[in-house]
Amino acid sequence: LDEQQANLFKEEYLKLHIFEQAQIFTSLNQNQRARVYRYLTSKEVGDMFNAFEGPAEDVVEYFKEMPTKYVGEVIYEMYTDNAVDILAYAEPQDLAKYLLYVPEKEANEIRQLLHYDNKTAGAIMSTEYMTISSDQTVKNALHAVKKEALDAETIYYIYVISDSNKLEGVLTLRYLLTNEDETCINKIMSTPVMSVSVNDKQEEVAQIIRDYNFLALPVTNDKGELLGIINVDDVIDVIDEESAEDYSHLAGVDVEDKRSKPLQAAFNRLPWTFGLLFLSLLTVIVMYAYRYMIVKETTPVIFIVMVMGVAGNAGTQSLAVAMRRLSDKEDTYTFLRLIMGELIAGVVVGIFAGIIFAIFTGQWLHNYVLGIALGIAMILSILIANLLGCVVPWILDHLRIDFSGIPGTLIAILSNFFSILIYFGIIQVFFKLFKM
Amino acid sequence: LDEQQANLFKEEYLKLHIFEQAQIFTSLNQNQRARVYRYLTSKEVGDMFNAFEGPAEDVVEYFKEMPTKYVGEVIYEMYTDNAVDILAYAEPQDLAKYLLYVPEKEANEIRQLLHYDNKTAGAIMSTEYMTISSDQTVKNALHAVKKEALDAETIYYIYVISDSNKLEGVLTLRYLLTNEDETCINKIMSTPVMSVSVNDKQEEVAQIIRDYNFLALPVTNDKGELLGIINVDDVIDVIDEESAEDYSHLAGVDVEDKRSKPLQAAFNRLPWTFGLLFLSLLTVIVMYAYRYMIVKETTPVIFIVMVMGVAGNAGTQSLAVAMRRLSDKEDTYTFLRLIMGELIAGVVVGIFAGIIFAIFTGQWLHNYVLGIALGIAMILSILIANLLGCVVPWILDHLRIDFSGIPGTLIAILSNFFSILIYFGIIQVFFKLFKM
Repeated sequence: LDEQQANLFKEEYLKLHIFEQAQIFTSLNQNQRARVYRYLTSKEVGDMFNAFEGPAEDVVEYFKEMPTKYVGEVIYEMYTDNAVDILAYAEPQDLAKYLLYVPEKEANEIRQLLHYDNKTAGAIMSTEYMTISSDQTVKNALHAVKKEALDAETIYYIYVISDSNKLEGVLTLRYLLTNEDETCINKIMSTPVMSVSVNDKQEEVAQIIRDYNFLALPVTNDKGELLGIINVDDVIDVIDEESAEDYSHLAGVDVEDKRSKPLQAAFNRLPWTFGLLFLSLLTVIVMYAYRYMIVKETTPVIFIVMVMGVAGNAGTQSLAVAMRRLSDKEDTYTFLRLIMGELIAGVVVGIFAGIIFAIFTGQWLHNYVLGIALGIAMILSILIANLLGCVVPWILDHLRIDFSGIPGTLIAILSNFFSILIYFGIIQVFFKLFKM
Repeated sequence: LDEQQANLFKEEYLKLHIFEQAQIFTSLNQNQRARVYRYLTSKEVGDMFNAFEGPAEDVVEYFKEMPTKYVGEVIYEMYTDNAVDILAYAEPQDLAKYLLYVPEKEANEIRQLLHYDNKTAGAIMSTEYMTISSDQTVKNALHAVKKEALDAETIYYIYVISDSNKLEGVLTLRYLLTNEDETCINKIMSTPVMSVSVNDKQEEVAQIIRDYNFLALPVTNDKGELLGIINVDDVIDVIDEESAEDYSHLAGVDVEDKRSKPLQAAFNRLPWTFGLLFLSLLTVIVMYAYRYMIVKETTPVIFIVMVMGVAGNAGTQSLAVAMRRLSDKEDTYTFLRLIMGELIAGVVVGIFAGIIFAIFTGQWLHNYVLGIALGIAMILSILIANLLGCVVPWILDHLRIDFSGIPGTLIAILSNFFSILIYFGIIQVFFKLFKM
């Protein structure tokens, strides 16, 4: 990035795809970035930020390095949905300053979009789309498409609106091209149009676009007025985000947290760790209550770690299956069938694991009757773990408690508690019955 | 679905979006399906199967219910990539019969596509795309687009190929529309074109389409010849599939397995359960070796379940972070930084958990020196669990062992083993030192 080679740099840089420009940009230091702002126009920088995949907070920092007017121009050049994603992280006074340099109409659109709740259709929609009224002809429509082709984020769907901005129909560019020039739009438009409400959750939007293989989906308000569109590329990011969240919940840690400094990331794990620490106290208390048995029957008691490990695993498996089904928004009947399925799995896995465990402990302890007792404890523990794994998330979901997901370890520790109760209980009953 | 109302049914059914048709179709019984085949043309059924989201095996079953000739026609009407997804599950003799009724050219394309390895670009690509040669004009290109608009799966990218089918450039329909009719294609086409090789993994394709916000990506062979394109809607399915796989691996169970009967699903979990059962034997053996200490110092030993629970959780967290980074294909340097980060997290979480644990056990056992010893055991256990969580997948990845993912429970059980070793070791040293 030599000063003398500014033109050469500019030429080479702009030859790259904007995604690659953004990747290179991320690796520059502050001095180098300052030169990029000097060499490139606001349009070129705005295009590049459209393809920026990193954290929005970083772009907010870059904005602080630029002259305010330049920032305004960059924002104007970006697609509104991308600009809004970034400006959501800007401080209010900075935002106000930047928007002074954005034309009134676009500035108002951005202010409007910033009001929508995070993770709703409104928050991810774009306001660059093509509209036409139903009384026009194919020729007019094609003319409009050609004019807006370089500005609109997508030109492959053209939305038909009434005078009051109500969404009336939709036309694909593909379909437009196959009709005669003089055909009237209202003869060929598709209607009714599938659309989402501005307050719908982003994962619902993603599901529709995925199921119907749309390239974009219009967003309307209660009155049916067209407010924006959601493009398939934004939806891909949503799907990836949601799946990373599910994964994070199961593990009890935010796996996408690349930004935090290691120390910060470590502190983020503390609350959950302490929660587990106190939960596992339950298990300690049960063991303490049975400590006389641990002293008397040390060897059979030792095998409890095997029961705990296997039951904890069974619980995590059931949890994962249940969480996945719940996020698919299936009905109660289907979910009851799932619980039945998990119980059947618990019985089958339990019986097999129980038999092996019984043979094994019987062989080791030279006491097959005790072995069978321990095997039964294994079966019951697995069954209870499976039940916990699917019933706990289901109950939370039905109580409409806003839980963001249950980590596998929580179910494992709960099932450990029950495993230990069952195990000691069975040993106790058994020793009484057989006077061993 | 009354016979008399055949026409009414047909009319209403075809008004629905093909995704909705497919959903209704799935809920029909065999008799009702037979009527659908009778009432609808092969084109209508083929369109519907293009939007079918359920398991391909189901469609194979439906094919068996239809006359063979009708199946051939349905296959011909479907987009090749979708037809191939389904035919991959058909039995060879059925496949041969169906293809007799598909025109020679398309049948050969399908045979060709069926040869590509599962989960490669070749297996998900479509052969319906638009091509043009570079010496043509914008006018010719638009004419070709209009002609193929209803058949091609996407018309929004037009690929420029040489006489020998080499991929030379690409044009978006958007860009085509903004140029004058007489402009020559080679003046305005984008070149070089980003493409993937037919043997590239589907997740790499998904990553490129996601990063660059493409609607489609061309697939070429070693010679640079264009073989097909991959559309963004196929990529969305890949992203969802891959994330479900990651999730399944962490939980040690196939969460997408909706097809298997409950009993089959239960049996699928057996091998992994038995593996864990035997692995946890390691822990039992350590405990057995220390059984004299369990008898002598029962109360301090009981607290080991807290250490095991918290360390198991820490290991699972590290594993989840590590697996996610590995699947992002980051380099060794980044991964070493990740390991450092996890060790820092281990130290921080360990120290906090250790202090609380030390105070707690000290208070309960009325012995703060012992409490501190147990706290140190907690710190070391968490540290080792974090190390295991990121080093185990990294080593497997670097040994190029084809592991499909490591379940959290495996790391938990391994870290249990080390926790118990550390815990007993520390208690032992401590009792010797302080002669308690």
